[in-house]
Amino acid sequence: MSDLGDLFTPERVAVVGATDREESVGRALMSNLSAFDGKVLPVNPNRETVLGEPCYPRIDAIPDASAIDLAVVAVPASAVIDVVRQVGEAGIRNVVVITAGFSETGERGRQREQELIDVAETYDLNLVGPNCVGLISTPNGLNVTFAQGRPPEGNISLMSQSGAFIAAVLGWAAQHGVGFRHVVSLGNEALLDEVDFIAEWGDDPDTDVILAYLEDIDDGRGFIETARDVTKHTPIVVIKSGRTEAGAEAAASHTGSIAGSDRAYQAGIDQAGVLRAMNIHEVFDYGQVLAGQPLPTRDDVAVVTNGGGPGVLTADAIGESRLTLADFEDDVSAALAELLPEEADVANPLDIIGDADLDRFRRTLDTVLGADTVGSAVVLSVPTALFEFEDLAGVIGDLQERHDKPVVTCLMGGEEADRAADALGEYGIPNYFDPARAVPSLAALADYRDVREREYESPTEFDVDSERAGEILAEAVDRGVDYLGVEAMELLDAYGIPTPASGLAESADDAEAIAEEIGGPVVLKIVSPDIVHKSDIGGVEVGIPIEDVQDTYRTIHKRATDHDPDATILGVHVEELVDPDESTETIVGAKRDPQFGHLVMFGLGGIFVQIFEDTSFRVAPVSEHEAREMTGDIHAAPMLRGARGRTPADLDAVVETIQRISQLVTDFPAITELDINPLVVAPDGVYAIDFRLTIDREMLSTS
Amino acid sequence: MSDLGDLFTPERVAVVGATDREESVGRALMSNLSAFDGKVLPVNPNRETVLGEPCYPRIDAIPDASAIDLAVVAVPASAVIDVVRQVGEAGIRNVVVITAGFSETGERGRQREQELIDVAETYDLNLVGPNCVGLISTPNGLNVTFAQGRPPEGNISLMSQSGAFIAAVLGWAAQHGVGFRHVVSLGNEALLDEVDFIAEWGDDPDTDVILAYLEDIDDGRGFIETARDVTKHTPIVVIKSGRTEAGAEAAASHTGSIAGSDRAYQAGIDQAGVLRAMNIHEVFDYGQVLAGQPLPTRDDVAVVTNGGGPGVLTADAIGESRLTLADFEDDVSAALAELLPEEADVANPLDIIGDADLDRFRRTLDTVLGADTVGSAVVLSVPTALFEFEDLAGVIGDLQERHDKPVVTCLMGGEEADRAADALGEYGIPNYFDPARAVPSLAALADYRDVREREYESPTEFDVDSERAGEILAEAVDRGVDYLGVEAMELLDAYGIPTPASGLAESADDAEAIAEEIGGPVVLKIVSPDIVHKSDIGGVEVGIPIEDVQDTYRTIHKRATDHDPDATILGVHVEELVDPDESTETIVGAKRDPQFGHLVMFGLGGIFVQIFEDTSFRVAPVSEHEAREMTGDIHAAPMLRGARGRTPADLDAVVETIQRISQLVTDFPAITELDINPLVVAPDGVYAIDFRLTIDREMLSTS
Repeated sequence: MSDLGDLFTPERVAVVGATDREESVGRALMSNLSAFDGKVLPVNPNRETVLGEPCYPRIDAIPDASAIDLAVVAVPASAVIDVVRQVGEAGIRNVVVITAGFSETGERGRQREQELIDVAETYDLNLVGPNCVGLISTPNGLNVTFAQGRPPEGNISLMSQSGAFIAAVLGWAAQHGVGFRHVVSLGNEALLDEVDFIAEWGDDPDTDVILAYLEDIDDGRGFIETARDVTKHTPIVVIKSGRTEAGAEAAASHTGSIAGSDRAYQAGIDQAGVLRAMNIHEVFDYGQVLAGQPLPTRDDVAVVTNGGGPGVLTADAIGESRLTLADFEDDVSAALAELLPEEADVANPLDIIGDADLDRFRRTLDTVLGADTVGSAVVLSVPTALFEFEDLAGVIGDLQERHDKPVVTCLMGGEEADRAADALGEYGIPNYFDPARAVPSLAALADYRDVREREYESPTEFDVDSERAGEILAEAVDRGVDYLGVEAMELLDAYGIPTPASGLAESADDAEAIAEEIGGPVVLKIVSPDIVHKSDIGGVEVGIPIEDVQDTYRTIHKRATDHDPDATILGVHVEELVDPDESTETIVGAKRDPQFGHLVMFGLGGIFVQIFEDTSFRVAPVSEHEAREMTGDIHAAPMLRGARGRTPADLDAVVETIQRISQLVTDFPAITELDINPLVVAPDGVYAIDFRLTIDREMLSTS
Repeated sequence: MSDLGDLFTPERVAVVGATDREESVGRALMSNLSAFDGKVLPVNPNRETVLGEPCYPRIDAIPDASAIDLAVVAVPASAVIDVVRQVGEAGIRNVVVITAGFSETGERGRQREQELIDVAETYDLNLVGPNCVGLISTPNGLNVTFAQGRPPEGNISLMSQSGAFIAAVLGWAAQHGVGFRHVVSLGNEALLDEVDFIAEWGDDPDTDVILAYLEDIDDGRGFIETARDVTKHTPIVVIKSGRTEAGAEAAASHTGSIAGSDRAYQAGIDQAGVLRAMNIHEVFDYGQVLAGQPLPTRDDVAVVTNGGGPGVLTADAIGESRLTLADFEDDVSAALAELLPEEADVANPLDIIGDADLDRFRRTLDTVLGADTVGSAVVLSVPTALFEFEDLAGVIGDLQERHDKPVVTCLMGGEEADRAADALGEYGIPNYFDPARAVPSLAALADYRDVREREYESPTEFDVDSERAGEILAEAVDRGVDYLGVEAMELLDAYGIPTPASGLAESADDAEAIAEEIGGPVVLKIVSPDIVHKSDIGGVEVGIPIEDVQDTYRTIHKRATDHDPDATILGVHVEELVDPDESTETIVGAKRDPQFGHLVMFGLGGIFVQIFEDTSFRVAPVSEHEAREMTGDIHAAPMLRGARGRTPADLDAVVETIQRISQLVTDFPAITELDINPLVVAPDGVYAIDFRLTIDREMLSTS
């Protein structure tokens, strides 16, 4: 038995707030339960009966209330806590609170929601909501929602943080043959949230695909860990809204949550093995194809069509996707040539021309699906007088089953196409009007196949001096600062990240002594927690010979005090001048995200980050494999690999630095932001040349 | 009367090849003509009657054949020429040749098509096809196609280079309420092509939108010129397939045409003022909204919704588009606050919450459409028990008409939504299930408004020495080369593009003398038509002091002969060293495209072009306005404008150089490719540092 017990399989359901009143939620709940396999018990102190069923005044007035499996609550907000306490006292395990007026409505509501959580935790309840549309389970006819539309039974389970989203899709899904197993409106997620239902449906053998509309993910790490387990066998497709600035503001206004950055969401969703849909059509397109078709073993697609133009449009869609057009080997081409009239060319897309009948469709599709080089197929047809689409649907369905390769179709037309879509639906084959929608669905199958083949590595544990790092951070907290710069580069040394030889000079003499020890020329940098952009105020001088070090010390010290007479100046950092041949400036950084924890960043320095935003992100901890992916993700990757006759950069050293930074921020959650900029990458190593970090002092001092 | 006369408004139509035989094209043509307002005359030597109509053996056997306005030809390919000659002899002006077997089928077919063209030109016929599906005109019930499905009447006219595309969309369009005025299948375009129908429908007051499916555009310049005129009053939306490599190969295999680059198509389509749709849904979405809604005067969108989640998705779609969410001014916000229940926030998207009735929808939408800051609106609704979508449709339609601002809707649901869509269609308001489709439609209206506001400037005519340029090119042809390098930089001087002082040295002494005149240090570059990549073989030395010039001359000369003992070496180019402070390397180039003529390119040098492909293209001749746009198109544009504390580059000089290059290649069509790489841009001018050019020698010598 799963964690959520019989939440979706109750035999007896109490509806608290049931009523006969037209247009009321209580009546809609009762009506929607008319097809329920089990027993419905209306509860309302003001009614004798509801829709003909005898009505009880309170939960605790129901004889044998402990035999109830699920209570649905649609009473005024002020009465909810008492009802839920009765539910708990009666020994009922599952409760869905439809009622609004909780944390979404200000301070009073937040208090009320906390009381609700306390009661639910006291009685160990499975609580859905509050402020939700309810839930549906099609196999037993359970529909405890007030939404219109009854979805057909299927193998897709859907959760949504927006009740309106569910209300919007139920009728549409029914019309388009999308069947659901379970549907849940998550509401305020006082207790049960998206991670719980991912786990629940991951354990459900009859849920083949999990779909989710999400506006935020509270527990990013939990989401990643749970979804990684589930997506080993069950695909998850998420539409995460609020991905643009405009959308994020709207989502914040809608749910009241503090929006994490979409970069963190994108990284977290990817690393979780979850597919991300960008719009409503995609989420259902991907859901349907994953629910109905096998996974392709290769990315080469065959296109069979009776019309040239639609074939070209499909080739464009393939060219835009991760997929490729399959090549036909000689024997396959020869076999196809036999099947086609003289004026037809053997090519892919395979245009079997307008006079193709069912038999030509059958033989050519059989041949291409049988070809070793073909991983999947798109079948296109425009209406002709030679056959009915429904008959073509049968031909395609049989061949798809026989070859067990994924097939999607564009039987393009009006009502005839709708009828064919129903016939194809029997085979789990989705039909589209536009090839631009068909191809992304095939690509989603390939994406999920790659997720299934993933092996998640544990992050490497480097041998580091975390004690010393902790001391450096603690000293900063003692000094009362939350910003550290080059003076704290020892922190990087402690984590095994190469830095130039250096020292902090507190006087001009001091500076010269350090430079002599390094053996100049050197770089001098002002050190002040009040001066973040050192170069902008002339606080950095590069390539200073030893004899000039004292003068330069005084110059940059003066510039700093001229700039800000009140600045705390800790001294001047005297640093070995590192300027290897053929080096490239990169940036490795980290930033704490409210939902996912630390996000680690890699990119090339300067305008590549600032203008092109050519960066790659992963949620920490970052494995070696993920760190290596990051160095390949960026558009400028060829520059590191040795483009234009350059010697390749030491990518291994970059990959290791990314992981060591990941380890550092994972060890010290109080680090809110960190940048090595630049991390100079040479053909034989890396050097952290400049560095800054901010700490959450409060968090560090309490940890 | 328009150029194509009564092609779409015939009163008497002859169907040559008419027959009763089931599943034949000749019968389908006759059936499709059953609703025609005029007279149909079947022609077939083997029939007495067809579908009950008396049948004539030949065109020239019809009494008063000259009164026929249109002949449709569906006879075997071998008989077509004779039939078309009879058509011409009879004085019939319009002919549609359905029959295939022409230029699409090899050499014999190409000859036959040429004969067809000759006959059509002899008799000055309006010839559509051959190898096409035919044409439709809904107002008079004319349907001379063999396709299934009869589109409803409307104000959109559609042309297609793919007959299958037409067959695919007719039934679908009828089902989705897309009405057409004229539809034409262009076939092989032996005579009439896309430019002719753009001109024709541009002159047709009842065609409000022109849609086109195109795989190639033969006459790119004609397309741009005609479309620029037409789009001043009638929007054109094109889906141009073959835009990816895979798609272009498929298109080439389909139509047999040599594909131009998609960059040229994209530039040409943009410069023509034509909107480009990327898939089938977009072409009809844009067509419908342009046919039904007014143009917005501003890009700020209001979103009114009874569900939060769909509102957030809409905000995302707006964030991804060129549009923005409108701000509400204080008086509007105050008015909205009055209309909303306490728990609803006044924001945009405006969530009027789930208990909104029709009246709340009416008042809030009336208020936002009346707001000065609102250019257009998206209205979203999920199904509720409080009203029917059809009634909401009426409310929205009336308000849209009253405020005369564009509105699109997402009334999200199943069959109820379909009925509402029909009601909204009466107001020309498109309804979508997915906000991700609704918002791009609004953006298309804004795109077309911008097209309407365009003023096309004539290209500047600079005072240049084209005679001298012609001589330089002619000399190259005389020498038998088709490649010119730095030795021909005088060509740039002749067109007023600044180049460093330089001279071609044929000996070491020579080189020193030139360097002395320039007043070193200088740059030395090997000059050989056989060495394109000079730097790669050590053929370029930079910053050579005068005393070293002789030695360096000998060194690079030797490297060149070592590299290729057979290379023709014209000498060594001795060039002033230009190295201004704060300069940026850019590239200005041009390349001849088979369809559009010269395409002019601008980008930043090095990896910006090679790795990021950060370039901008325009079809020549390029106006000053277009040249300036090019410098702003590239992502790296901020680098030229003075990012990171740099002095801004001399953009005026860049803009002028782009125009002068445009003038050069326009004056000399024989130039196939040209690159100034780098064009160094300083704060006070530009310098063409290196240069290469290839010529079509044959074209130049015959010009």
